[in-house]
Amino acid sequence: MAYRAAIVGGSGYTGAELLRLLAAHPEIEVVHVTADSNAGARVAELYPSLVAAYPDLVFHPFDAADLDGLDLAFLALPHGQSQRHAGALLGRVAHLVDIGADFRLPAASYEQWYGEAHRAPELIGRFAFGLPELFRDDVLSRAHVANPGCYPTAASLALAPLLAAGLVEPAGLIVDAVSGVSGRGRGLSAPSLYSEANENVSAYGLLTHRHTAEMELALGRLSPAGQAQVLFTPHLVPMTRGILATCHARPAAGGEAARLGTDGLLAHYRQFYAGEPFVAVLDQPPATKATAGSNAVHVTVRYDARTGTVLAIAAEDNLVKGASGQALQNANLLLGLPETLGLPTVGLVP
Amino acid sequence: MAYRAAIVGGSGYTGAELLRLLAAHPEIEVVHVTADSNAGARVAELYPSLVAAYPDLVFHPFDAADLDGLDLAFLALPHGQSQRHAGALLGRVAHLVDIGADFRLPAASYEQWYGEAHRAPELIGRFAFGLPELFRDDVLSRAHVANPGCYPTAASLALAPLLAAGLVEPAGLIVDAVSGVSGRGRGLSAPSLYSEANENVSAYGLLTHRHTAEMELALGRLSPAGQAQVLFTPHLVPMTRGILATCHARPAAGGEAARLGTDGLLAHYRQFYAGEPFVAVLDQPPATKATAGSNAVHVTVRYDARTGTVLAIAAEDNLVKGASGQALQNANLLLGLPETLGLPTVGLVP
Amino acid sequence: MAYRAAIVGGSGYTGAELLRLLAAHPEIEVVHVTADSNAGARVAELYPSLVAAYPDLVFHPFDAADLDGLDLAFLALPHGQSQRHAGALLGRVAHLVDIGADFRLPAASYEQWYGEAHRAPELIGRFAFGLPELFRDDVLSRAHVANPGCYPTAASLALAPLLAAGLVEPAGLIVDAVSGVSGRGRGLSAPSLYSEANENVSAYGLLTHRHTAEMELALGRLSPAGQAQVLFTPHLVPMTRGILATCHARPAAGGEAARLGTDGLLAHYRQFYAGEPFVAVLDQPPATKATAGSNAVHVTVRYDARTGTVLAIAAEDNLVKGASGQALQNANLLLGLPETLGLPTVGLVP
Amino acid sequence: MAYRAAIVGGSGYTGAELLRLLAAHPEIEVVHVTADSNAGARVAELYPSLVAAYPDLVFHPFDAADLDGLDLAFLALPHGQSQRHAGALLGRVAHLVDIGADFRLPAASYEQWYGEAHRAPELIGRFAFGLPELFRDDVLSRAHVANPGCYPTAASLALAPLLAAGLVEPAGLIVDAVSGVSGRGRGLSAPSLYSEANENVSAYGLLTHRHTAEMELALGRLSPAGQAQVLFTPHLVPMTRGILATCHARPAAGGEAARLGTDGLLAHYRQFYAGEPFVAVLDQPPATKATAGSNAVHVTVRYDARTGTVLAIAAEDNLVKGASGQALQNANLLLGLPETLGLPTVGLVP
Repeated sequence: MAYRAAIVGGSGYTGAELLRLLAAHPEIEVVHVTADSNAGARVAELYPSLVAAYPDLVFHPFDAADLDGLDLAFLALPHGQSQRHAGALLGRVAHLVDIGADFRLPAASYEQWYGEAHRAPELIGRFAFGLPELFRDDVLSRAHVANPGCYPTAASLALAPLLAAGLVEPAGLIVDAVSGVSGRGRGLSAPSLYSEANENVSAYGLLTHRHTAEMELALGRLSPAGQAQVLFTPHLVPMTRGILATCHARPAAGGEAARLGTDGLLAHYRQFYAGEPFVAVLDQPPATKATAGSNAVHVTVRYDARTGTVLAIAAEDNLVKGASGQALQNANLLLGLPETLGLPTVGLVP
Repeated sequence: MAYRAAIVGGSGYTGAELLRLLAAHPEIEVVHVTADSNAGARVAELYPSLVAAYPDLVFHPFDAADLDGLDLAFLALPHGQSQRHAGALLGRVAHLVDIGADFRLPAASYEQWYGEAHRAPELIGRFAFGLPELFRDDVLSRAHVANPGCYPTAASLALAPLLAAGLVEPAGLIVDAVSGVSGRGRGLSAPSLYSEANENVSAYGLLTHRHTAEMELALGRLSPAGQAQVLFTPHLVPMTRGILATCHARPAAGGEAARLGTDGLLAHYRQFYAGEPFVAVLDQPPATKATAGSNAVHVTVRYDARTGTVLAIAAEDNLVKGASGQALQNANLLLGLPETLGLPTVGLVP
Repeated sequence: MAYRAAIVGGSGYTGAELLRLLAAHPEIEVVHVTADSNAGARVAELYPSLVAAYPDLVFHPFDAADLDGLDLAFLALPHGQSQRHAGALLGRVAHLVDIGADFRLPAASYEQWYGEAHRAPELIGRFAFGLPELFRDDVLSRAHVANPGCYPTAASLALAPLLAAGLVEPAGLIVDAVSGVSGRGRGLSAPSLYSEANENVSAYGLLTHRHTAEMELALGRLSPAGQAQVLFTPHLVPMTRGILATCHARPAAGGEAARLGTDGLLAHYRQFYAGEPFVAVLDQPPATKATAGSNAVHVTVRYDARTGTVLAIAAEDNLVKGASGQALQNANLLLGLPETLGLPTVGLVP
Repeated sequence: MAYRAAIVGGSGYTGAELLRLLAAHPEIEVVHVTADSNAGARVAELYPSLVAAYPDLVFHPFDAADLDGLDLAFLALPHGQSQRHAGALLGRVAHLVDIGADFRLPAASYEQWYGEAHRAPELIGRFAFGLPELFRDDVLSRAHVANPGCYPTAASLALAPLLAAGLVEPAGLIVDAVSGVSGRGRGLSAPSLYSEANENVSAYGLLTHRHTAEMELALGRLSPAGQAQVLFTPHLVPMTRGILATCHARPAAGGEAARLGTDGLLAHYRQFYAGEPFVAVLDQPPATKATAGSNAVHVTVRYDARTGTVLAIAAEDNLVKGASGQALQNANLLLGLPETLGLPTVGLVP
C-alpha cells in the first residue's frame, strides 16, 4: 500500500470504526494504533469483529516518537487531548486528521463554548474544517484537518443550500436532532447503559450543546450575512448508530423560498449537491438506517406555505459520515487519493 | 363493581391497554368486548399477557344491541368507524369515550384535515375534548368524551402554560415530536415491521399530520388570541411506547418570558399544574421511559436568552396518557369517580 | 398501613422495582431506604419514574440502627453484602427478605460456587429458599427468606413438574436461558452499554454460572432421587427485562413421559400448578413480553417422540418474579397477608 | 465486469442483501432484478440505502426469457417458487444459486419435513448443498448450488469438527438457537411487528422446524455413522440480524472428548478450520454483533467435565453467512473467482 497511517486513541468507537473502514482501503495501511487504557491488549480481543482483518495488531501506549515519518495520523482522542499532543505530532507526521473537537473552532469561540482557554491556539489555523461538501477547497489547501462533529455535519448539510443561496434568515434557525447511543462513545456512564437508554427518548444539553458553535460557524461562513444563529436541541434515542437532524428556518425577505416551494427547493438542493458522491437528495423523508455503516448523507426539504417555514432534514451514520468515514474522506483528499476510496455509500438494510 | 363497561374494538393496542388498566380498576367491570376481525377468539389467546385477568373473555362481533343498558363504552376503533356507530350507541349507553379521532374536531376542521365530510356532524357537540388538565369543566359538563390524540396531548400540555398566560406568540409554534412504534397500531404495514423500524429514525407526515389540527384547537382555546398556529413534525423512533414532544415558541411582545427566564417559567409551570395528579414539572429534561405504562406526563421548560426562544418539552406513554389511560381518566370523571382510580402514576423503569 | 418496611440498597434496579411495586401495596409502607453510593440524593432524582409516589423520599447511608423495630427489610445489595449485615439486622427487624445470593445455598455449596467461605454460615438455616410455588411451607415456617435468583426461578418452575413426578432423569438436564440486560444491574461495565448489548446476543459464564447451584438445589429437593444435575448456559439478549428458560430432559426409565406425550404433560403441568395465581400453563410457547412488569410465570412443555426428549419452557420478568416481585410475594407470606397483594399478574403489552 | 447476473425475487431482504454485497463486487454485475409484487418500482425507492449504487435499477416481473444467456442467477424466492422456475432457468443461465429451501434436501426428506411432494425431484441432484467449509468439493463439482438455511449453517459449523472426528454421539444433539427478526423476511405478519417483537423472546416451531432436516443431513454426512439426530429449538429475539446457535452433544464412547478437554477441543477446531477465511475459532463466547454485515462465522467449544457434555457455539449474520453472503461465496466458487471476492469479514461494531 502507498501510505502508512497510525490511529491515536484506537480503542474507542471512532477508532474501531476507522479500523473497520481502513481494513477495506487499498492505499492506506494501519501500522500503529495506540490506546493508553488498553495498551498491551490485542485489537481483536477488544473487538472480535476485527479478528479477520487485524489478527495480531496490538494497542500501544501513546508515544509521539512511534509515529515518526508516518504519512498520516488519525486522532480519535477524548476532548482536550489532541491540543496536548498536536505540537509533538506536527513535525513527525505529514497529515493529521483530528476527529475530536480541539481544532474546529477559533480560539475565542472555543473558550466561550468549552469554558476553558485553548492550549495551542497558534495551531488552530493549520487545520481545515473538514466538511468537504461545503469547504473542499479549504481541505485541499491545508495539510491537516479538524473533522467536524456528528451533529454539525448533518445539520449543516441539511441547511447549507438554504443559507448559501440566501433563501432563509440566518437567525432563528432551529435544529432538533436525535442521535444513537454510540455518539456517547465507549466510556462508562449511566445514560449509556442499555437498561437506561432502551425504550427511552430524552433531550439533553438544553441550550448549551457545544456543537451549536460548529453549526453557526459552518452556516455563517456560507451565509451572505456571514453569520448564523442556531438553537440546537439534541436527543438520545434507542439505537446504536444514526443521526437525524430536523431543521427549521424562516424564509428570507423577498419571498424567494415561497416562490420556489417544495419542488423548487428540492431542485435547488439537487443542483447544490450535484456530483457529490456521498449526498443524496430524496423526495421522501430520509431514514437513518438507510445510511448505516456508510458515508452517505440523505437530505430532503419542504416549504410549508401554511406557516411560512422551511423544513430541512438530514440523516447520516454518526460514526461514519459523522466521524470516522468523514475522517477518511478528508484523508483521501489530503493524500491526493480519490475522495471515495474505501468508503461505502450503501447502508446496511435491514 | 359499580359500573359495567364495553370495549368496542378491543383487539388493537388501545383496546388491549384498556383491558390491562381495567383489570386493576375497582369500580368498572368489562362485560363485553368486540373485535370484528378476531371475533370468536379468546382475549388471552391474542394477548397471553391478559390470561390471569381475563381467562375466559371472548371477542364478539360488533352489534350495538349487545351494549344496551351499559354504563360506559370505550370506542377503540380505526378512524371513521366511530362516526358510523355513535348514533346507534348514544341511546343505549350512558357514556361514550371515543379513543379515535372522529369527534375531536369541529366539522369544518375535520373535513379540512381528513379530506372528507363528517358523517355525523350533529353529534360532535355532544363530545367534550377530553384533556382534563386543560378542559376538565368541559368533560364534567358533557356525557361523552372525544379522547385527544397522543401527540396533541403531549404537545398541548407542554405549551399550555405559555399560551394560557400569553407568554408566547400563538403563531410560529414548532413541535418536533417522536413516537414509539405502537402509535401505528397493530395493523400490518411495512414501516411497522421490526426489521424496518429497528435502528432507524425518520420523520413522516411532513407538513400535513392531522394531529396538527388538535394542537391548534387546544392551544387556540387557551390563548388570549383565541387561535394558535403549529408546524408539527412527527418522527418514528425504535421503541414500543413513548412520545416526546420538543416545542419551540417565540416570546410574546412585552418581554415577560425573558423577565421570567427559565426559573420563572418553571415556577409558572409548577403553579399552573399544581394539584394535577398526572403532571410532574421537572427541572431536568423529561424521559419517556419514566412514564412507561403510567398515566403520567413529565414536562420541563427553558428560556434561551441567546436566541430569544422558549423551549418546552413533554414526555408521556402514548398508549396510556396518550390514549387508553386518558380515556379511563375521562371515564372516571364522567362516572363521578375519583379521577385517578385505577391509573398508575409510576413508570416501569428500567 | 399495617406494616413498616425498609429497603437496604435501594438505588439499584431491584431496589427501584421494589419501590415501584410497593407504591401500589395497600399494607406495606416504605419508611426508610438506603443507598451508600447515592446517599443524600432524592429517590425521584435518580428515578423520575417514582416522582409521583415518592416525591420527598431520600436515600440514606446504611446504618442498622435506623431499621430498629421495623416489620420488614428487603436487602437489595451487591453479592456478599447481606452476610456482612444480616447479623446486625436479625435482632432489629422482624422479617428479612434477601434478594441477593448470600443465604440461598448451604455453606459448602456456597463456597464451591462462589470460591470463598461464607461469613455467616450459622445464619443460613434461618432463611427459607423463597420459591413459594415449590416450597411455600418452608417460607411459612421461617421468619426470613432468601429470594431465589432470576434464572433458577424460571428454570425450576419449568422443570419442577417433571422432577417432582419422576418423569425425567434428574441428571443430564440442559438449561439454555436468555436474559434481558437489566439482569446485570445498574453497575457500569462495558457489556451493559447500549452500544455493546444492542443488536447482539452472546452466551456468557460458560459451564460455571453460579445459578446452576440453585437450580440443582431446588430441583434436587423435588426429585425422588434427592438430587439433580444441570448444565446451564445463560445468554444476554437485547432487551431490558425478561428471562426465557428453554430446558431439556431425558425421560426416566419406564416410559411414562412417552405415554403421556405432549397433551398428557400439559395436563400434568396444569394440575401441578392448579391454584397458583402467578403461574399460567400455556399451550403455545411462552413469550417474555407477556410477563413484563408482572409477577407472572408462563410455562409450556412438549414431548418429542422423534428424539425422545422432554422440552419445557418458562418465561418471566427477571426483575419481578425473578427478583423484587417474588420478594414481595414472600413478604406477603411472612406477614400473613394475601400472597398476591400488590402484585400485578398482567404484563405490559405491547 | 466479467460476469452478468440476475436476482430473481430481489425485493425481499435476501435480495436486497445481495444487491448490497454485489455493489462492492468487482467481477459480477447485476443486470436484471425481478420482483413480481414490486414490479415497476425503482430499487432505490424501496431501499433508499441502495440509491448511490443503483440509482436507476427497476424491478421487473419474472420472465425466464429475460435471463437468457446470463452467467448467473440468484433465486431469492419464497418457499416453493424455485422448484417451479428451475426447469425453465437451467437451460438459459449457466449457474443458479438458490437461496430458498427447494433444492437442499433429497426428495423423500423434503416431502417428510415440508408436507408435500417435490415438484421437480429430478433436478435436486444437480444442486450442491452449498456449505463450502464442509462440502467445498461438492460445490466445485456441480454447476448449481442450493444455499443452506441460516440456522443449519450456524449449527453445522458449530458441531462439524466434533462429528467429523467422531468425538460425540451423532444422536441426542440439542441445538437451541436464536435469530434476529430479519430471518422472518419482509412479509407482513403480526410476530414480525416491532411492537410484538421488541422487548420479547419466545421459542417457536417447537419440535418441527424444517431446518432440523438440513442439520441432520449436513452433520450426518460428516459423521462416521453416516447419520445424525438433532432436537432443534429456534427462538426469536429482538434484534434485526444475527443467529447464535448453542449446541450440546454427548461425548462418544472412548472418552476422547474428555481427554481433549476444552483446550484440546479448541485446538482441534482451529486445525479443522485452518485456512478458512470466514471461520474464526475464538476462546471467548462468540457474539452475533461481531459478525454483523459480514460473511464471518465465529465459533467456540467447551468440554464440561462436571456433566460430561460438549458445548459448541456459533455466531453469524443470518442475512450474510446465513443467506446472501454464502450465496455469493458459492457463486465465486462456481465462477472460478477467489472465494472471498466482495465479501466482508469485518462486522459492523458497535
